[in-house]
Amino acid sequence: MRTRFLQGLDELKQKLLRMGGMAEQAVSRAMDAYRTGDTAVCTRVTEGEYAINSLEREIDELALDLLAMQQPMAVDLRFIIAVVKINADLERVGDQAVNISERVVDLSRLPAVELPVDIPRMADLASEMVRNALTSFIQGDAAMARRVLNRDNELDTMNRDISHTLMNWMSENPSMVQQAMDGIIISRNLERIGDHATNIAEDVIFWVRGADVRHGHVPQG
Amino acid sequence: MRTRFLQGLDELKQKLLRMGGMAEQAVSRAMDAYRTGDTAVCTRVTEGEYAINSLEREIDELALDLLAMQQPMAVDLRFIIAVVKINADLERVGDQAVNISERVVDLSRLPAVELPVDIPRMADLASEMVRNALTSFIQGDAAMARRVLNRDNELDTMNRDISHTLMNWMSENPSMVQQAMDGIIISRNLERIGDHATNIAEDVIFWVRGADVRHGHVPQG
Repeated sequence: MRTRFLQGLDELKQKLLRMGGMAEQAVSRAMDAYRTGDTAVCTRVTEGEYAINSLEREIDELALDLLAMQQPMAVDLRFIIAVVKINADLERVGDQAVNISERVVDLSRLPAVELPVDIPRMADLASEMVRNALTSFIQGDAAMARRVLNRDNELDTMNRDISHTLMNWMSENPSMVQQAMDGIIISRNLERIGDHATNIAEDVIFWVRGADVRHGHVPQG
Repeated sequence: MRTRFLQGLDELKQKLLRMGGMAEQAVSRAMDAYRTGDTAVCTRVTEGEYAINSLEREIDELALDLLAMQQPMAVDLRFIIAVVKINADLERVGDQAVNISERVVDLSRLPAVELPVDIPRMADLASEMVRNALTSFIQGDAAMARRVLNRDNELDTMNRDISHTLMNWMSENPSMVQQAMDGIIISRNLERIGDHATNIAEDVIFWVRGADVRHGHVPQG
């Protein structure tokens, strides 16, 4: 019984990793579309959302099955609850990728313009935060989770700088207001992705700390 | 043992209601500040965020304790997992209220201007969606949750209209770009609040459906 339970926990972890991979791929596709202007990629982001939503439900159901299977220990309970919360955050990372790709489609319908900001660099940081937050969870590494929290300020600053630059730029180029707005919104979407990474990192700390307090050791996963 | 567990479930529900009340109050305070320009209220929104975050953790801990207390039935499991997820959404409604009040502070530092859009009306709808989503959860009312989902389109349309109006307005009034941007961002924050209400409503449907399937009746809470 315990063996089957442990196998279930492992399956849960694998599915969550897959979810993370799908969310990350959605962001990277949306950014490819932004860089290249190839809106065919945007369709794939939107289609991918269904797969992400359905995997989210699958993970929740597996978590419920595991909780129902046997009386889990406190450390396992925290792990499963953390999975359910992280799962929701990853799904919303996917939502943000959809939002970004909608802006890219909008941009593709407007006169082309080179926005005077480096949005792909911001996207790299946001994606790295999500990846590291998930890795910190899989490795039960609270220190790594704390480093994710620290980087969120950096992302917020990038967002503020990009917004500021684009606002000044649009006052000087009133005919480009829509393109600048798309840039500002994409930047905010990326900042929201960072917030989800932050939420995940906080859940990792919550889980590891609880495991710590109740068992006197950091769980190995 | 079962009685203590049921009391715990009731306590969990009460705390979640309190969380909902605090999130709703944060939004209504932020909108008061928007209407009146009284930024003192904004400080209270920011301070209230700590209370909301701490109640979020309290609710998660209680959920964990309940899961650890006894082998819950499937319907109780789904209820507890739904609480954990709804809890996270309510906390983020509070975050959006903080974001709105930051924009209000920004507006207060800029030359005063009457934006040509009805943001308070949008806020009313967003708050109503959150309130109804939470009520549908407490009453186990999937039909009510579905009505919340339907209203999300209305909110999205309002957001699109407001953004569109303000973008046109700022191209004609380039010196007012920042004020218009604040309006657009507040509108997006309200749309995100609607998304959280939508998430909550989806969790209600998930929970009620699961309870339905496994027990052949709609749970009374």
